[in-house]
Amino acid sequence: MTLQKLLGIDLPIIQAPMAGVQNSALTIAVCSAGGLGSLPCAMLSLDAMRQELAMIKAQTSKPYNVNFFCHAQPEADAMREAIWREALTPYFAEFGIDTDAIPAGPQRLPFSAEAVEVLEAFEPAVVSFHFGLPEPELLARVRSFGAKILSSATTVDEALWLEAHGIDAVIAQGIEAGGHRGHFLSDDLNAQVGTFALLPQIVKAVKVPVIAAGGVADAKGVAAAMALGAAGVQVGTAYLLCEEATTSAVHREALKSEAARVTALTNLFTGRPARGIVNRLMRKLGPMSTAAPAFPLAATAIAPLRANAESLGSGEFSPLWAGQNASGCREISASVLTRELAGGI
Amino acid sequence: MTLQKLLGIDLPIIQAPMAGVQNSALTIAVCSAGGLGSLPCAMLSLDAMRQELAMIKAQTSKPYNVNFFCHAQPEADAMREAIWREALTPYFAEFGIDTDAIPAGPQRLPFSAEAVEVLEAFEPAVVSFHFGLPEPELLARVRSFGAKILSSATTVDEALWLEAHGIDAVIAQGIEAGGHRGHFLSDDLNAQVGTFALLPQIVKAVKVPVIAAGGVADAKGVAAAMALGAAGVQVGTAYLLCEEATTSAVHREALKSEAARVTALTNLFTGRPARGIVNRLMRKLGPMSTAAPAFPLAATAIAPLRANAESLGSGEFSPLWAGQNASGCREISASVLTRELAGGI
Repeated sequence: MTLQKLLGIDLPIIQAPMAGVQNSALTIAVCSAGGLGSLPCAMLSLDAMRQELAMIKAQTSKPYNVNFFCHAQPEADAMREAIWREALTPYFAEFGIDTDAIPAGPQRLPFSAEAVEVLEAFEPAVVSFHFGLPEPELLARVRSFGAKILSSATTVDEALWLEAHGIDAVIAQGIEAGGHRGHFLSDDLNAQVGTFALLPQIVKAVKVPVIAAGGVADAKGVAAAMALGAAGVQVGTAYLLCEEATTSAVHREALKSEAARVTALTNLFTGRPARGIVNRLMRKLGPMSTAAPAFPLAATAIAPLRANAESLGSGEFSPLWAGQNASGCREISASVLTRELAGGI
Repeated sequence: MTLQKLLGIDLPIIQAPMAGVQNSALTIAVCSAGGLGSLPCAMLSLDAMRQELAMIKAQTSKPYNVNFFCHAQPEADAMREAIWREALTPYFAEFGIDTDAIPAGPQRLPFSAEAVEVLEAFEPAVVSFHFGLPEPELLARVRSFGAKILSSATTVDEALWLEAHGIDAVIAQGIEAGGHRGHFLSDDLNAQVGTFALLPQIVKAVKVPVIAAGGVADAKGVAAAMALGAAGVQVGTAYLLCEEATTSAVHREALKSEAARVTALTNLFTGRPARGIVNRLMRKLGPMSTAAPAFPLAATAIAPLRANAESLGSGEFSPLWAGQNASGCREISASVLTRELAGGI
């Protein structure tokens, strides 16, 4: 079965869910063009999620994807948090931040029974997960309203695991991809490989359709992914400058600059490795640091640094998520971009 | 101009030069099939080089490529060597190796006036370099006998630099590639990106033909590289099990095993980052270690460990060079493999 038929879409182009830089406006624009728009819920409250889903429902009758992280929420670890804040001390001092007054940071909550309840009121056609899959009971509830289920694999082993757990299609996330790595069976970053190596090996290993992610930036990239056996592509970075994205000014500026040529995997902003444009914090503390608390707790102490720096027009303390190929970023409508990408099919 | 016309070959398939695992037999087999066979000279004495070139000349009239490293040979640093041997002490003890008796290790000599002199007697159609280009005087001598000149770029900046220095075609070496990274303008490994990201950006940046390297393992990979704008491909790993390769028994065994799924960039074996299958030494000391002497001096102290381990049938101390996609490795003739790869054009 083609990916289009499986998901009920016209074009096998999936807009990657990108928490923090988009809301339903991007989702709707992509759906309207015939692709699969995605709504990332990792950083949304239940109310905000409900609101965004209502917006989508009001503006398109096309299938759309709702995305969740499904990590285990860690216990807060006072010792580790103290070490982390110690490492950040020079920067707190630079901005005159009172570390006793740091509020709870941006939440990244795992998929939950409460979230399923919200979904059940909307019955989205597709639900995708990052960091594996939620527990079987929650997954069964998602499946029961008919949603197709996607998740990311960063290794052949993860693809086989997802297939064995009944996934409808696998997203092969190559090392080029921006944002959080989706690995969940092993945290050995050496096992994380480029799209050119990962995609064909996953295509050979599983029977379900495989969606290519990582480095795909234009119609030629889509054609190349298809040549390697992909049933479709998931594109993130190229959508970051789109009119419908909520990408911040400092993030947009970085994407348009030469700085976008050098990204790195960093755990400084959340506690898990994610790819972003290298900035001052990444140069000084990492990009990978053993001092960073477990995902998603590292974000709390970073939040005031980011806010202060951004208020001065600086992205040096912000997660400037981007993949290794920002050459597809243009300030156009996401609908236009979606149709252009589909030119590679 | 097509790559075929530029280099005088039938198929735009270049067999990657792989020092230590091949001699002229592989070169000849690839040339005979219509691809561009390569002879790596980094580890050959001038006499051996002359001998191998004579073999090629005797057995094929097709164009072939002769490859050289063009690093600056570092001064020996007794302090650094001592730190390195200290780090290796437990393994010397394990094998009962007398560290006072370690002979000079495998040489990796840079391109030189003496090497040019050997080349001038054979006038190969193509000469390729790794780690940039040799000094202008040497390059001019290569050019004067009509050789086309290739070199690897691992970033857009390196591709632009090579083009500005008169290169005939650029090899875009994605992070998936096995063996030594070819970077020469910056040693920031974060700037090293996947083929899916690197290739289209280099294609956009330069006017000369671009050859894709890294992750290309079969005809579909060749088709994908062409879709991204490559004029041809350079394939290494897939040739490692070929009958004409001199790949060692432990290396062949590793390539055929599940171990081949996890490779890493390591500087332990030579002093420069190169991709190989993860083994015990890489797990214990790195894979990247600040203790390793400058390229190529790290190899000396490793050599007896490798020899001892290999004599016991173990590859745990050997450089098991491989790219991230070993799925194309088969025990077939390199001629057959070359023609199969060309099925993707």
